[in-house]
This record gives sequence, structure tokens and C-alpha cells, in this order.
Amino acid sequence: MPASPPGSRPTLLVLDADPPPRLGRLTGRVRIEHADDSTLAQRLPYADVLLVWDFVSLAVRDAWPGEEPRPRWVHTASAAVDHLMCPELTASDTVVTNARGVFDLPVAEYVAALVLAMAKDLPRTWDLQRERKWRHRETTRVAGTRACVVGSGPIGRTIARTLKALGVTASVVGRIPRTGIHGPADLDRLIARADWVIAAAPLTEQTRGMFDLRRFGVMQPSARFINVGRGQLVVEDALAEALSRRWIAGAALDAFQREPLTPDSRLWGVPGLLVSPRMSGDTAGWRDELGAQFVSLYERWEAGRPLVNVVDKVRGYVPGR
Amino acid sequence: MPASPPGSRPTLLVLDADPPPRLGRLTGRVRIEHADDSTLAQRLPYADVLLVWDFVSLAVRDAWPGEEPRPRWVHTASAAVDHLMCPELTASDTVVTNARGVFDLPVAEYVAALVLAMAKDLPRTWDLQRERKWRHRETTRVAGTRACVVGSGPIGRTIARTLKALGVTASVVGRIPRTGIHGPADLDRLIARADWVIAAAPLTEQTRGMFDLRRFGVMQPSARFINVGRGQLVVEDALAEALSRRWIAGAALDAFQREPLTPDSRLWGVPGLLVSPRMSGDTAGWRDELGAQFVSLYERWEAGRPLVNVVDKVRGYVPGR
Repeated sequence: MPASPPGSRPTLLVLDADPPPRLGRLTGRVRIEHADDSTLAQRLPYADVLLVWDFVSLAVRDAWPGEEPRPRWVHTASAAVDHLMCPELTASDTVVTNARGVFDLPVAEYVAALVLAMAKDLPRTWDLQRERKWRHRETTRVAGTRACVVGSGPIGRTIARTLKALGVTASVVGRIPRTGIHGPADLDRLIARADWVIAAAPLTEQTRGMFDLRRFGVMQPSARFINVGRGQLVVEDALAEALSRRWIAGAALDAFQREPLTPDSRLWGVPGLLVSPRMSGDTAGWRDELGAQFVSLYERWEAGRPLVNVVDKVRGYVPGR
Repeated sequence: MPASPPGSRPTLLVLDADPPPRLGRLTGRVRIEHADDSTLAQRLPYADVLLVWDFVSLAVRDAWPGEEPRPRWVHTASAAVDHLMCPELTASDTVVTNARGVFDLPVAEYVAALVLAMAKDLPRTWDLQRERKWRHRETTRVAGTRACVVGSGPIGRTIARTLKALGVTASVVGRIPRTGIHGPADLDRLIARADWVIAAAPLTEQTRGMFDLRRFGVMQPSARFINVGRGQLVVEDALAEALSRRWIAGAALDAFQREPLTPDSRLWGVPGLLVSPRMSGDTAGWRDELGAQFVSLYERWEAGRPLVNVVDKVRGYVPGR
């Protein structure tokens, strides 16, 4: 049931802090309105399409109308969708799409940067530089090491491909075993022998809190853990404990239970833990790419052609290859 | 002219601080003696083979005997040979070999680590972590950027291959143009458009001080410079000036005019300069590999078979493919 009367221009409601770039091509074809967290509930019944540009906001969950009229299509400028899914949205016939593809290579490069930096002990080198101390150390080779990438979407697969290009033996674990992808039954065996355990899974009921004390206990003392997925994949206290007990050799988090981290968070100071402000996917030009990707999807929708990047609302991600 | 009388065991003189590992296979076949910088001149006439295990020492230059008896073979446990070459050694019929091959992959991984760390702004991220500040920034993609690797030996070529695996367009510049390698005439044109300029050349009369103020002036303001070759390739004051004038965006040095850097060196504190204590090639197990490589060369020498890794003493490196 369209929110706009037949014949009128569709209404695109943009949930944002900063306005999105690259929507100029839609001028005259769509009525663009803006909402913030406080006005979203009020505006949603009048929108045909919702563009979730502010991908940190949790407002969609709370504001989603239980009954029509409501948007027929929701697009989020993020790979993750857990921040907007709620039972009413899942049950509705509204289509949800995401930014699949835009972040794959940047995130994979970020993971490679962390892996190499940890292997070459760069954080310590730069600490020593600050102290003006010349301390030669031996480092480790990355080629010939073993990685387990948890998450078999395009981001996880691109991470594995990038690490393989550096000579790493990389295994990928997904929800359903298929060619080249291990299923959950192999997870503990693979992380037990991995030098690098990399979390890049969507947040679902199966993955929430999956990296807990037991899983860190399974890893090797020389293993390093990296999370470029969702903060809620990791039990943060368990990770801090595993690091302080030296169950694992190091970790890097680019996503957290609560973002941004406040200055009093203990995570800033956990020994062996590298903290970055959720920036693994955000290379220069990423907002332009996200804007252009939305326009391209909008033009399919306008023409009545099938959308791509359609999220399976029950599973919580775009299924596929 | 052998130093040892015919029929006796050859004398292997080891110039070292710490004794080399993995020489056990030679027990009973060779008389092993040790020298340090102060005793080298006195011991050299009695040695058949000199193993330069302490590759920081400059003692060989000063101690090399102008006349026989002297070692017939000198092996250095390093890729560089400039620290031992002198006119008398060049003019003698003594064969010089080096550790070609051992450092290629470790150095290439180290360069990839620096390239990715600079592209992803990791040094700043870890500064901000220390200050407990959450500051999201956009970073840059490495795939699609352009590198110019100066030095066409196995280390330079492995660096180029590793960067290419990350999607970087990498050109290699050597002394003599050949298939896949540019000659010196292309150097300025290539560094002018490079995002990454990587020095991995041997130190020769042609390369000494080649990275001077003029060359840094040719580079793009967004370019980063990395030296994993010899310290004397770079005019350090010129690099500091280029960084402070923002002629280039950043640099990383793993080799210096004088090593170790003393605490009062200005280089520790040059903005945009990352300093590491000549460790790019030194991954765990490297000493074992260097020891095993020497034993393998020794067994060729003992059997009268041709040595490999033979240095062209005039050019100052192992010529070849």
C-alpha cells in the first residue's frame, strides 16, 4: 500500500545527521524529507521509502509502524541491519536492502593492516619511538600462518582472499557449510589452530556473544583476535580477561557493545588490546559510493525492476553466494 | 693461496658478538675461531674463510690484509656488503658471498605492513587510544595506488610482488633496464607519480645519498617514503625538511646513517616520520636460517663446487636475474 497518492512523486524519508551526497540525480523525481531520531515515528507513515543514512541510530526499531501506511522499502547505508530490525519490520511486507559490496575491500585491507602490524610488532615500535629507545626485536612472518575468518558474506570472503594473497592459509566459517565455507560445527577446531581469528559475521541470535570466555580459551596463546563485525559478537569482559590471563597474545576491536567508547571505558587501557573507532570500512569517498549505490537501487525500484542486496529479514543478512 | 697447510682442517674465522647457531654440522671438518673488531686484523692472515656474522661491524674494511696470506672466501650474514668492501678486498681474488634470499619475504611483509598502517592511519589511531579519544576518520584504499620500488634485487622484486598482491601498481627501478625493470632514466618520472616510494637498493657510489632534497621535491604531497635499504641512501636532513615543509605526507625509516640512533637524535621526533630499529628482515628463526645458509655454502666450497650468492665486488651486490 503506497503512502503517497497515485500519480504523485514518491516520498523519500532520509534518517540522517549529515545529508547524504550524490542524490542530485533524483531531483524532481522524488520528494526528499529528512527526519531525526525524535521525528522519525511521526514521519514514517508518510514515506514511501526510508533511507537509513545514520547507520548508528537505533530509532527505526522503536519507530517502525505496526500497521500501514508505512514505507514499502527501507535501505540502510551499512552492511549490518541489526540496528533496524524488529519483529514488526520482519513481519511486514516491506523490503529491506543494505550496502553490500561497498565495504568489502576497505575492511579486508584494514584487517590485513592489523594482521601485519601485529606480526611486525608496530605498536610497540612506535611506543619505543616515543621513548627514543632503540630496541631491536625479532618479528614473525605472516606467510605460512593460519587464519579463521568467521562470517561468510562478501566482507568475510574478501578478508580471506586478501590474507591468502599474503600467503596466509585462511578458512571461512559461515552459517551453512558449502564449497569453500565451513559450517559452525568446524568453528572450534579451526579457531584452536588459528594464528588469527577474525570476526566479520552479521549480528544474529546465533552470533550474539559467540566470542565468549570459552571460545577465547580454545584459542592458542599465540593467537590474535580481530573484530571488524558487530560489537555484540564479543563478550568484552571475557576478551579483557583472556588478554590479561595471556590466553591469547593480542586483539584489535573496531566495533564495540556501546559506541562511541567513553573516556572512562576500561577497554582503552586493556594491555594487548588495540582500539579503533569503527572505521575499518570507511575509506575516502565512501559516502559518495553509498549515495551512488542508493541512487542506483532507487532507479531499479522506480522502474519496477527487482531490487538487489535484499536482506533476508529473518536471518538478518543478504543470503547468497 | 690457502692460509692453512695442505691436509690440515681449514680455519673458519667468525666475526661476531653472539656465536652463530647451526654450525654443528661442520664439527670436525673445520677449525672454528672467533674474532672481534679489535682482534680481527691479527687473526685474518690465519683464516681460510671469514664469516662476517656481526653485520653491523665495519672492522673488515680496516683489517683486510693488503697481501697474502688472507681468507680465500668471505661470507656476510647480510644482504648488504657495503660495510665490508674496501679497495684491497675488491682487488684481491677473495670471493665474497652474501645472505641473498633470507630477507626477501620478511622485508617485503614489513613494507606491506608500513604501507597499510600509513594508509589506515594506524599510528594516529593508537595515539588517540592512549588519549582515550574516539575520533572517526576516513582512511585510504591501498588497492589502486601506485608504488615505485628502488632496487631490483630479490628484496626489491619481492616487495613489488607483495604490493601487487594487494592491488598496488608497483614499478621497480634498477641500475640496468631489463624486462619488468626500469632503468635510472625513469626514476624521477616514476617517483613523481608514486603514492609509495620504497628504497631497497644496495649502497653503491650511484645510490649513496640518492634520496636528497631534489628527489623529495619531485614526489607528490600525498606520497609516503619508506627506506628498508641502507641508511646512506637517504640524506636524513633533507627528509626531515621535506616532511616539515609537507612536500611529502609521511615516511618510515628502518635504516639510518648512524646506528643505533642515540636518544638525542632529532629523527625520533620528526613529525610524520616513523622510526624502527633496523628490524625489517628479522623474523623469528632468521639466525637459524642464516646459519644453515652458511653451512650449505660451506659444503659447496669444501667440495670444490662453485659458490652461489657471489657478490660482484665492483658493483657491490650479487648481479643476476
